[in-house]
Amino acid sequence: MKNFVYHNPTKILFGRDTISRIGPETATYGANVLLVYGQGSILRNGVHHQVIESLNKAGCTVVEFGGVQPNPTLRQVKEGVDILRRKNCGVICAVGGGSVIDTAKAISCAHPAPHDVWRFFTAKKSIKSAVPLTCIATVAGSGSENNSGMVITNEEKQHKFGYGSRLLHPKVSILDPRTTYTVPEKQTAYGAVDIISHLVEFYCTNSVEFFPLQKRIMEGIIESVMQNTEIALRNPTDYDSRAQLLWSASLALSGLPSAGLGRVGMPMHLIEHSISALHDTIHGAGLAVILPAWLEFEGRSRPRKIAGLGRRLFGLAGADDEDIAAATAQQFKQWFEQINCPVSLTSLIGECNLLPIGENTRFLAKIWRLQEYDREKVLSILDLCR
Amino acid sequence: MKNFVYHNPTKILFGRDTISRIGPETATYGANVLLVYGQGSILRNGVHHQVIESLNKAGCTVVEFGGVQPNPTLRQVKEGVDILRRKNCGVICAVGGGSVIDTAKAISCAHPAPHDVWRFFTAKKSIKSAVPLTCIATVAGSGSENNSGMVITNEEKQHKFGYGSRLLHPKVSILDPRTTYTVPEKQTAYGAVDIISHLVEFYCTNSVEFFPLQKRIMEGIIESVMQNTEIALRNPTDYDSRAQLLWSASLALSGLPSAGLGRVGMPMHLIEHSISALHDTIHGAGLAVILPAWLEFEGRSRPRKIAGLGRRLFGLAGADDEDIAAATAQQFKQWFEQINCPVSLTSLIGECNLLPIGENTRFLAKIWRLQEYDREKVLSILDLCR
Repeated sequence: MKNFVYHNPTKILFGRDTISRIGPETATYGANVLLVYGQGSILRNGVHHQVIESLNKAGCTVVEFGGVQPNPTLRQVKEGVDILRRKNCGVICAVGGGSVIDTAKAISCAHPAPHDVWRFFTAKKSIKSAVPLTCIATVAGSGSENNSGMVITNEEKQHKFGYGSRLLHPKVSILDPRTTYTVPEKQTAYGAVDIISHLVEFYCTNSVEFFPLQKRIMEGIIESVMQNTEIALRNPTDYDSRAQLLWSASLALSGLPSAGLGRVGMPMHLIEHSISALHDTIHGAGLAVILPAWLEFEGRSRPRKIAGLGRRLFGLAGADDEDIAAATAQQFKQWFEQINCPVSLTSLIGECNLLPIGENTRFLAKIWRLQEYDREKVLSILDLCR
Repeated sequence: MKNFVYHNPTKILFGRDTISRIGPETATYGANVLLVYGQGSILRNGVHHQVIESLNKAGCTVVEFGGVQPNPTLRQVKEGVDILRRKNCGVICAVGGGSVIDTAKAISCAHPAPHDVWRFFTAKKSIKSAVPLTCIATVAGSGSENNSGMVITNEEKQHKFGYGSRLLHPKVSILDPRTTYTVPEKQTAYGAVDIISHLVEFYCTNSVEFFPLQKRIMEGIIESVMQNTEIALRNPTDYDSRAQLLWSASLALSGLPSAGLGRVGMPMHLIEHSISALHDTIHGAGLAVILPAWLEFEGRSRPRKIAGLGRRLFGLAGADDEDIAAATAQQFKQWFEQINCPVSLTSLIGECNLLPIGENTRFLAKIWRLQEYDREKVLSILDLCR
């Protein structure tokens, strides 16, 4: 095992009737709240009303910043910072999925920064302070409600970059699985792919050999996600499957499954970020296309871990690691198809010139210290995605 | 899934050469440090020297309180409080296993309390404040370095009771697996039994049905503990197995595997506490005797979960839950024997009158809300331990 620091101070309030706690929890950090949310689903399902009611009851004034879009943009972050400054908000409350929470995180560190917030994402500056953040996670996917990372798209530069800092951990995150009942089928499936891909990145892409403890935990979460996604798609209001998906998402990227693995690259996310920076595709949909192709590609040169995962997860039998790794890629692909995710690049973005994607990755790969993912390697993987 | 709050703010520094961080980390909370440790193993293996050096280098004055014994006592807690008060220590640093860390936790909440500290353990009072605590965990077992609980024996009353509060979370815990190289074979094995028993308690004793996510995580940790214990016993200085054991211990009782399970009883611990309150036996050794007997006993009336665990963990095949549950109990017993743990009450405490154990549990069971564990039930289980 490699050395690690594990420190996740986010307080999780999980379960039924927990939304009403957002008021008192947020009021601890300030009375003037910037409420960040997305495209209106929380208006339709009643969560917005519950949040406002709870915040007001706790004595908070609420300034609303709705309309955050998927693949959240630097432009919107800056709009949010403007509002926060004009209205003198001392605390941010994010209600939504990963895009909303990531936007709120970016606002939280942009406000006190004496420079453009994008300099964090290009690793030119590190975060020194942040406005306190509370969250209600309404989608099982990114896990942003329980970690220190954020991903934002600079639409002018067509760069979708991530950045992390311990100061970005939400103070409190509330997870009521019932808020995810209204997440549409497609988004439910994409969220599942996102959770799985986080774990497969850790499992298969780190350069060192690692250990049963971490493998068993990751396999366990993936198995549970697959099982519960199928249930939730059949019955969107099945509480327990929604609950397990939401908690799985929060755990997968919490730092815990990857603790001790050493540096883990996230090459599938690297490629997805380049695709969606250029084509504004949905994160989980992109990953559904990339993950099987990446496993196929990597399985040719370093099949052992992938085969190990396939044997455990899908009960694949046989001694040849390369065969089993290829079969593992196929199994994921079939399952993604089964839950109606796109599994080819054509169905994701149509026929198009792939060169710009390879080009886009070059800059990003340098920042992520994944220099081996140059244009050629990315194009080879994309070729398997067709 | 049941509602839960998960909030574990302890910062973990894990790995090689991390002990030198104890000085700066502790100095954050105060310059006058009460250093709590045990029977001298840290003097022999050099850890004591490293700790003192790091604390001094960070500008701390160190007041030593060594000699904490296994099954730590209320008397020693009070001695520690006296020293802390006389020497005006503002922070506690615990270096050792569960007994040492639990003693330090008890001192930390006893100092500010306006009443006898034992009133926490009898659930008469709740903790309102505690002296900050930093830890170096040198044994893989209790997991006290990463949780909010403590267990102390009131030797006058012959009661071994546990208590928990969020204020007892260590601020920082340092885990260098190399500090566990010198843990003797027996203690290594007992630690493994302790970790496993924590998870089996959660897995098998909660009253509600639960879910693949939690099951898979717990099975994964148990499997890893069994595998790594065998390696560590063959080669005590195998870094990776020691590392996985130490991290498994910290995870098992961190609140994470049990999050969402609802109220979990800990009846095996209940019985062990009564045995060791009366006979001063070693915690893990007692659990090695009790766990198989408890599984056998419970397997007769509610075999399903136990059988599920046995199928996953030991690959036991067959449709009859009762048979598989009994075989699961046997498998654990055989493995405990294999790692040289006692598996009979006679080898643990010799031939003796069991009635006082049943009597001792009555009071404890009431506090733990496990009233069904009356004298008769406990004696039936102890009968299977013979």
